[in-house]
Amino acid sequence: MREATTLENKLGRILPDDLMKKYDYKPFETTEIGHPIIQRTAPKVRVSDGDGKVTNDLAKIVKDNVKDGMTISFHHHFRNGDFIFNTVMEEIMKQGIKNLTLAPSSLTGAMNDVAIKAIKNGTVTNITTSGMRGELGDVVSHGALETPVIFRSHGGRARAIENGDIKIDVAFLGVPNADRCGNANGMYGEEAFGSLGYALMDAAYADKVVLLTDNLVDYPNTPASIKQTQVDYVVEVDKVGDPDKIGSGATRFTKDPKNLKIANMVSDVITNSSYFKDGFSFQTGSGGAALAVTRYLRNAMIDQNIKASFGLGGITKPMVDLLEEGLIGKLMDVQDFDKAAANSMKENKNQQEIDASWYADPDNKGAMVDQLDVSILSALEIDTSFNVNVLTGSDGVIRGAVGGHQDAAMAKMTIICAPLTRGRIPSIVKSVDTAVTPGSSIDVLVTDYGVAVNPNRKDLQEQLSDIPGINLYTIDELAEKAQKIVGQEEPLNYTDKTVGLVEYRDGSIIDSIKEVKD
Amino acid sequence: MREATTLENKLGRILPDDLMKKYDYKPFETTEIGHPIIQRTAPKVRVSDGDGKVTNDLAKIVKDNVKDGMTISFHHHFRNGDFIFNTVMEEIMKQGIKNLTLAPSSLTGAMNDVAIKAIKNGTVTNITTSGMRGELGDVVSHGALETPVIFRSHGGRARAIENGDIKIDVAFLGVPNADRCGNANGMYGEEAFGSLGYALMDAAYADKVVLLTDNLVDYPNTPASIKQTQVDYVVEVDKVGDPDKIGSGATRFTKDPKNLKIANMVSDVITNSSYFKDGFSFQTGSGGAALAVTRYLRNAMIDQNIKASFGLGGITKPMVDLLEEGLIGKLMDVQDFDKAAANSMKENKNQQEIDASWYADPDNKGAMVDQLDVSILSALEIDTSFNVNVLTGSDGVIRGAVGGHQDAAMAKMTIICAPLTRGRIPSIVKSVDTAVTPGSSIDVLVTDYGVAVNPNRKDLQEQLSDIPGINLYTIDELAEKAQKIVGQEEPLNYTDKTVGLVEYRDGSIIDSIKEVKD
Repeated sequence: MREATTLENKLGRILPDDLMKKYDYKPFETTEIGHPIIQRTAPKVRVSDGDGKVTNDLAKIVKDNVKDGMTISFHHHFRNGDFIFNTVMEEIMKQGIKNLTLAPSSLTGAMNDVAIKAIKNGTVTNITTSGMRGELGDVVSHGALETPVIFRSHGGRARAIENGDIKIDVAFLGVPNADRCGNANGMYGEEAFGSLGYALMDAAYADKVVLLTDNLVDYPNTPASIKQTQVDYVVEVDKVGDPDKIGSGATRFTKDPKNLKIANMVSDVITNSSYFKDGFSFQTGSGGAALAVTRYLRNAMIDQNIKASFGLGGITKPMVDLLEEGLIGKLMDVQDFDKAAANSMKENKNQQEIDASWYADPDNKGAMVDQLDVSILSALEIDTSFNVNVLTGSDGVIRGAVGGHQDAAMAKMTIICAPLTRGRIPSIVKSVDTAVTPGSSIDVLVTDYGVAVNPNRKDLQEQLSDIPGINLYTIDELAEKAQKIVGQEEPLNYTDKTVGLVEYRDGSIIDSIKEVKD
Repeated sequence: MREATTLENKLGRILPDDLMKKYDYKPFETTEIGHPIIQRTAPKVRVSDGDGKVTNDLAKIVKDNVKDGMTISFHHHFRNGDFIFNTVMEEIMKQGIKNLTLAPSSLTGAMNDVAIKAIKNGTVTNITTSGMRGELGDVVSHGALETPVIFRSHGGRARAIENGDIKIDVAFLGVPNADRCGNANGMYGEEAFGSLGYALMDAAYADKVVLLTDNLVDYPNTPASIKQTQVDYVVEVDKVGDPDKIGSGATRFTKDPKNLKIANMVSDVITNSSYFKDGFSFQTGSGGAALAVTRYLRNAMIDQNIKASFGLGGITKPMVDLLEEGLIGKLMDVQDFDKAAANSMKENKNQQEIDASWYADPDNKGAMVDQLDVSILSALEIDTSFNVNVLTGSDGVIRGAVGGHQDAAMAKMTIICAPLTRGRIPSIVKSVDTAVTPGSSIDVLVTDYGVAVNPNRKDLQEQLSDIPGINLYTIDELAEKAQKIVGQEEPLNYTDKTVGLVEYRDGSIIDSIKEVKD
């Protein structure tokens, strides 16, 4: 028997001992959070009477407030329409500021070029984020940074901000409206995106909060998701974002037969489980299958006269439709994935904006995810221990985000939906390339070939037996099926250098990501 | 020339040197706050998944959480209808817990009997509050406590909580609704009172937050002014308060000719000042004269086609009427003085709930009071240096509250309205018994006999000259008039014992209150 060392965590993932010590990290052990006593942190506030905050001189704001070695943050609510990150980072680079830690809620494709430039010229030397994609993921996976990127879930970021693990010196927050004192929300204006959920953490905990807006409105601006009490500067810019790229636009119902089949099966799993009863709650993602699930679920809810108490998470039009039909009581909204959802937040008082802590912080007095009955999540890979990878692709390159994955997996029934294979790439594998969400928090896998229930959920196994349309397999059987289709995978080639550390939501390390060797 | 010592502050108030040193207090110097850098404090949080918070066993909650020497808090939003304070304090006394510091947002008459009992038996040995009235003020003024009561304004309390001067161990917060995880607001339920403004500070900063409610509602309860992330327990009680005593009921227009005369004159002062223009803002109190001012102001606003940007403070029905008529853009609501105002908060999205920090904390990045154009405040006494007393009566006994007085006096034009005399008691005196709000922040005094403008406001002096209906006097002239009517005042008799320290909103000491000698 091999003796356990601190180099290996409970999932059997080998962790870099030197970095674990350097950052004082513990290896992942359990999804149970327990009842620790946490001393919260708090910002240093420069007192103001609220006057004189408005300026169009971003250069001066950067010069006066951003120093070498600081931690700065952004939010990603503008998604692919974001102009703020590039505007601010270009100014920072112009001023030659170096060694910054970048701590955004996430990094979107719109930020990639500038982020890469900032890494290459030493402006940014540390990153913590929910994820990254495209060329940025590529250069990071190929060792562009000396230090590993710290990947955190949305709830994990909230936790890290609240306990001081992430200490934001200056937050640069783009908003589609603000008044002269800094009262702002995400609901009104040409580039409205709805909930400011992630950015509310930065506004509450950063020492300096800089709003950037192209829409200065009358004082006092309400509702004030971000409050004047939190804001140091209101910087007027030409344009905060591209409205057409902020939401995913009109939400389209998937026509892909694989996705529809999976969605239908997910709906069957839910409606045949003991959780499908009046007052149940659920979270879905924004993928095609997830959207389709909501439609199928709707039919079952109407047929069986079942109403949900709340829908959670990234809100989409299909969920808004259910709210308007009275099939959901409340939408708890940390971000909006499309314009219909964003618009609904300002019109419907039953769509409540929540911050990332309320959504998913494991270290507060109870987050929404802890009250979830059902969550429907996706996966790049899932292994025969039900561990899920949503971060690295089949080539080992970072091309995803932790997002709310670990957090929403706290639901009483967490369903992963994934096609058995994507082209020549299997989704079900013996061991995931990067473990992001531990298998013990995953209850059901739904693929286009059939369903696997986590063996530790005998109750669900029973509930889903002998249901027409639900073909049950073991996850090993599904992995074998996948392997038969695509053949044996080639092992990936990595160097010894660690380019990423993946925190579990409690701040322990669930896996590391190595530099890709081409 | 007498040499200045630390015993005397800038207003010439003699302060108790020993206590100033013991509590590390600075004497009041200026109303200017400046731009200090403040390290905020933060609570210690016991992590929970949100389950198991509901109980009807208050005794166990007290036993498990309240220990000798702790600081506990309550809010006063139920005003004279409050049942929570008595319920909790009786349980605490039953368990023999001693040496508590009581740190409520204020103490109302409904709490007096139990508070006195708790003082007399040593359960409560320290108090910080906005004010006290009736028999409680009487026993405290006669030395019932060994240590002085610390009087703080609503903004000053917010500041003290945010910087750690007040460290609340356990907050007991009564609410007219809550769900099983602790999401709650003040707007719905039989004992609804509207804004939870003051209590939001306790919910955010206390280590332990105990909600008490008689109205457990479905999860998730929205809007959530207090959030589940902040709440440790939800205690079910029979009744949180007496609905009839919570609001002042239907707001009555004063018929007292003195009050009407003053109100009319206040309205004339406002409408003839340079502040009366489109987009102006104002705060009024809840007294008869203040309510009448709002009505007179309404006529002038309609006549001159002027609309206010916001109304602030304790909200009343006349202000709600202006909001509904479109004469005010927004109501910024830290508390509601009557049922119509409370009801409006849940119906009208332009009536925004604000916490005490946003309302008036001098040490954040800008409070609402800093943006006020006009505030209309009352006074028990005002002296010829314009210093105002709202705490002690003509007999030297504590019978009032700092409330938002010091805070709202930050308005560009602060108007004190007071009758020249009340029976045989003059309101205008040479030197106030207790200085609560410094004269330098008071701009105009309106009495039934005429108006006095602070000599440091030459601009207002000019604006208000030669206005029909505004008879200008110096404040010395008004003091002489008052003295002629009521004769020379008898000096009050005090012992050397300090029973109260009055903080200015910045935390310096503006005055002390001595034990009354009968």
